[in-house]
Amino acid sequence: MQETHGARRRRLAGLVAGSGADAILVTRLVNVRYLTGLDSSNAALLVPADGPAVLATDGRYAGMAAEVCPDLETLVERRTAEALTTRAAAAGHRALGFEPHGLTVERHAALGEAADIPLRPLGHPVEELRRVKDEAEIGLLREACSITDRAFEAVLPRIRAGVTERAVAIALERAMVDLGAEGVAFESIVASGPNGAVPHHHPGGRELQRGDLVTLDFGARYGGYHADMTRTVAVGEPAGWQRDLYGLVLRAQLAAIAAARPGAETKDVDAAARDLIDGAGHREEFTHGLGHGVGLEIHEAPLMGYDKTGKLMDRVPITAEPGVYLAGRGGVRIEDTLVVRPGGPELLTTTTKDLLVL
Amino acid sequence: MQETHGARRRRLAGLVAGSGADAILVTRLVNVRYLTGLDSSNAALLVPADGPAVLATDGRYAGMAAEVCPDLETLVERRTAEALTTRAAAAGHRALGFEPHGLTVERHAALGEAADIPLRPLGHPVEELRRVKDEAEIGLLREACSITDRAFEAVLPRIRAGVTERAVAIALERAMVDLGAEGVAFESIVASGPNGAVPHHHPGGRELQRGDLVTLDFGARYGGYHADMTRTVAVGEPAGWQRDLYGLVLRAQLAAIAAARPGAETKDVDAAARDLIDGAGHREEFTHGLGHGVGLEIHEAPLMGYDKTGKLMDRVPITAEPGVYLAGRGGVRIEDTLVVRPGGPELLTTTTKDLLVL
Repeated sequence: MQETHGARRRRLAGLVAGSGADAILVTRLVNVRYLTGLDSSNAALLVPADGPAVLATDGRYAGMAAEVCPDLETLVERRTAEALTTRAAAAGHRALGFEPHGLTVERHAALGEAADIPLRPLGHPVEELRRVKDEAEIGLLREACSITDRAFEAVLPRIRAGVTERAVAIALERAMVDLGAEGVAFESIVASGPNGAVPHHHPGGRELQRGDLVTLDFGARYGGYHADMTRTVAVGEPAGWQRDLYGLVLRAQLAAIAAARPGAETKDVDAAARDLIDGAGHREEFTHGLGHGVGLEIHEAPLMGYDKTGKLMDRVPITAEPGVYLAGRGGVRIEDTLVVRPGGPELLTTTTKDLLVL
Repeated sequence: MQETHGARRRRLAGLVAGSGADAILVTRLVNVRYLTGLDSSNAALLVPADGPAVLATDGRYAGMAAEVCPDLETLVERRTAEALTTRAAAAGHRALGFEPHGLTVERHAALGEAADIPLRPLGHPVEELRRVKDEAEIGLLREACSITDRAFEAVLPRIRAGVTERAVAIALERAMVDLGAEGVAFESIVASGPNGAVPHHHPGGRELQRGDLVTLDFGARYGGYHADMTRTVAVGEPAGWQRDLYGLVLRAQLAAIAAARPGAETKDVDAAARDLIDGAGHREEFTHGLGHGVGLEIHEAPLMGYDKTGKLMDRVPITAEPGVYLAGRGGVRIEDTLVVRPGGPELLTTTTKDLLVL
């Protein structure tokens, strides 16, 4: 069930064939990685509609490229995109497609000067290929999520009154690495008490207090793939409003998960959660979309919100993360990473969603 | 000696006044941070040649903006650049400058559709302002470098045969955070034995062995500012060629530091190191530039290499990091972060450069 990098390039070549360009210059590094396996900070890939692809990377990564993708011709050049544009012109291509979100205006202008070949924006074809994962990719996500679950369990005893948000965040991140993560998927959020009303709060020096809700949003990276999970816990016995808010967000999250079927419109999945929160009078306090695709990037297609379009498909991993944020009081967010499947979603993060009272 | 964010914006406005545009749209997040103090993943800033600046950020960061830059008018919008472009058009500006390296082709096209105002690339004016640091910035760099020095000292006893590269990298990173770093400045490099021939080696499962040279390249981030230091150490008594190579790279590094004076051409500073390495027959094995500016980014202006132009100035922090890489055998790199000063460079990293035999 694992697609080879060559097979991915052939599917991309098929998309290029219908585009009016003779080849595409892939400059987003994550897309180069998806198509070649090479994880480099300076690389680009030329994929013609017909014929073999050509990689470019600089001297620091030449050895790695020879190991990871020995089947690919590789130009060792610091100016990777310029080298491949020159190559495309020399190959007689009449028009070269590019990723309009993968080149700055400055770099695009430099390419125009590098070679005499018309450049055409081709949209996001590699992100479209990446949207549906193969089972090997899902396996990496599953391991990233398992590490995330186990790190949460390992750190639970340390979440108590008197500990700072920052100390909890550091403990979570170290636990993930100790459990085999290659790193964190993103900067961890630990937001306690009133800070819980800030969805992207940076964990700071505030000490957890009895009576706090504490929102923890974190994830492991494994084999390049990103886990994303949020749990909100109570320090000491929660007040009635806290239990009520938690119950509401949990119902919303479960409704969204139930709606995440192949063929579902993403905005309908968002609405499954949002309508419940609206109905409870918190419309203005659910200030973000329901979730997003995850994979080689922490945020990727499909983005899921009330204003987003598109359908879910089998083998698309997404997050479902409704939240309600009450300014000055606190917030609740509950998030899982899951994979859309014909028989119903496969949850990759499996930590309990009972309200934990610590 | 600390410049206010308002003073920085006024200096930028002065540059805009001579540009032919009526205002500049700043979209590089690090530049928005430099000009406002706001550290956000979604923000943009409009700085007119005349009149007050306007910030845009989304709801997640609105509270933070009110706290960090209460003097700035702030639009709370998800599409920050579009909102400010519309604002610039409504304000009657005739032409809006932008950062050509801070907008993708796709986003640039969207701005063109957002409002009827000509867009003009204005180069890198904020990076030019950022090149010379004020003493408060240098103070943050000094602390980042001090943490880096102390982390190295703390981890030294753990660098010995049988320990993996990855374990050493994790220990260094944890030590920096324990010593007060807000995070790491970049992914640490620990390259042992033959891996030392790969300048950007990812630390892996290889265990250090007696007879290895081990190159450690790492740094702390503090207050947004980045330290960068490399040391190469020996595990067990080094062979003659290892001592010789170390001595050569050290002489090259000291020569470069001595040449780093206000008014010096960056390529001459590079040459001070490179000529020594060339003279010893290793021209092809010093495969990168001498160094780079450091500040809010780990790599910033000035880039220092044989093909770079520009002069050093007082209060410009740079790295000096010559290296020699012998394929299959190993390598040596020695790097400090320093500040150019009229009386000679101020070294911010102060760890010994005697060859440590562990």
